[in-house]
Amino acid sequence: MNAGKVIDIRGRRLGGETPLICSPLVGRTRDGVLAEAAIVVAARPDVIEWRVDFFEAVGDTAATLDTGKALRAVAGDTPIIFTRRSAREGGEPAAIDDEGVVRLYDAVGAGRVADLLDFEMGNDPAHVRRVRDDAHRHGIRVILSYHNFRETPPQEFLAGRFREAERQGGDVAKVAVMPRTRTDVLELLAATAQADAECAIPLISMSMGPLGSVTRMVGGVFGSALTFAVGADSSAPGQMPIADLRVMFDIVRRAGGGR
Amino acid sequence: MNAGKVIDIRGRRLGGETPLICSPLVGRTRDGVLAEAAIVVAARPDVIEWRVDFFEAVGDTAATLDTGKALRAVAGDTPIIFTRRSAREGGEPAAIDDEGVVRLYDAVGAGRVADLLDFEMGNDPAHVRRVRDDAHRHGIRVILSYHNFRETPPQEFLAGRFREAERQGGDVAKVAVMPRTRTDVLELLAATAQADAECAIPLISMSMGPLGSVTRMVGGVFGSALTFAVGADSSAPGQMPIADLRVMFDIVRRAGGGR
Repeated sequence: MNAGKVIDIRGRRLGGETPLICSPLVGRTRDGVLAEAAIVVAARPDVIEWRVDFFEAVGDTAATLDTGKALRAVAGDTPIIFTRRSAREGGEPAAIDDEGVVRLYDAVGAGRVADLLDFEMGNDPAHVRRVRDDAHRHGIRVILSYHNFRETPPQEFLAGRFREAERQGGDVAKVAVMPRTRTDVLELLAATAQADAECAIPLISMSMGPLGSVTRMVGGVFGSALTFAVGADSSAPGQMPIADLRVMFDIVRRAGGGR
Repeated sequence: MNAGKVIDIRGRRLGGETPLICSPLVGRTRDGVLAEAAIVVAARPDVIEWRVDFFEAVGDTAATLDTGKALRAVAGDTPIIFTRRSAREGGEPAAIDDEGVVRLYDAVGAGRVADLLDFEMGNDPAHVRRVRDDAHRHGIRVILSYHNFRETPPQEFLAGRFREAERQGGDVAKVAVMPRTRTDVLELLAATAQADAECAIPLISMSMGPLGSVTRMVGGVFGSALTFAVGADSSAPGQMPIADLRVMFDIVRRAGGGR
């Protein structure tokens, strides 16, 4: 990681020496999301992510914005990532189409409900451009992401995904893949280190599941700027408790790993 | 790691689910070694390693055996690795030649001072055979090791070192190398995972220095059966406190990493 990549989000340094810890919210209702947020914020993650594909009323923009504003109040100064993960990339089937998501993201940005928007770079390129341009007009940043819950493609393909996110104007590039072997886990870390040398934006990466869980612990050494950890409920396999990661990062920092 | 590889050493499972933690002793005198051993044993490593190249009287077999027996008493049931690391592979310059080391190892084995002997596979092949045969006659096991404090050779070379240790009749194969880049760190882990699939003996591996320190934490996920940690004084760059590793291994185990 080089200092030029650091993005400041409400005082948190994404791309700084230690990875930020982000906890997902996967509530299905307004009350569920807000109750979960209260628990999660008490565990003091650096960032929270509202996985809005779990939210039953996601097709109702007014209801989503209303819950988002209430969430903003509960979160206080904790930065919020707003994410509709598509079913194609491991999300919940949600009652909203892609065009609706682009409009929802625009409304969320205009309403200052989130600090970052996560959008899959595999979406329609016209949608990617609109989400990026709308977000930047609102002064919000965009994570362009790639997920593969079936396998781990080769290092060069994965490094190419990070570069593609940057090429498409993403402020942050994210790659999450499923390992089948220990070699797959190392492939993801190698791709991250390669892309960290090639890209000028912060990267987020992880190898999922129990096999990949070490990447959530030591990914920072290889260039990953953020890791997802369980506050209340997990949103993907292999996520660990926040407290475990804090301990781990402290030990890695004291050992001087990777710096 | 597969269960068939496990070696039982005084009840410790080398090659089991969690890496064993080994602390080095680097005292220069009898009193120094024994005082250090008392401190180290109190920190409860799984294994201790007497780095006898630090011991000033190493050229005096009777004095070395006498200190070894006193060490055996201080160590209690903690297994002991007896190691003369050569200056060629990062050890202290010591007042003993290779022929003397072979005879010393034979005496140490006969005297039941150690449970494992570490001998570099880069030594004269005739010496390697004698150390191995003497040790096995005494019912002691041998670690055949390779160290490179300058650099990290390519994965295939490193995997070849593990295989060579097995081919030469080693009971355990050890490879320790110095990284210059993050890619080097992954190269060592990849070589370990490769050799773990190819070899039928337990492996020990590490990438040294602050950059490589993560391999001391998560190497077990990729097939390393033992990690060195500081009890009193370190014997190589990048070694961490025992307590930090215990915490780390507990978190890795709970996350199910690599198993």
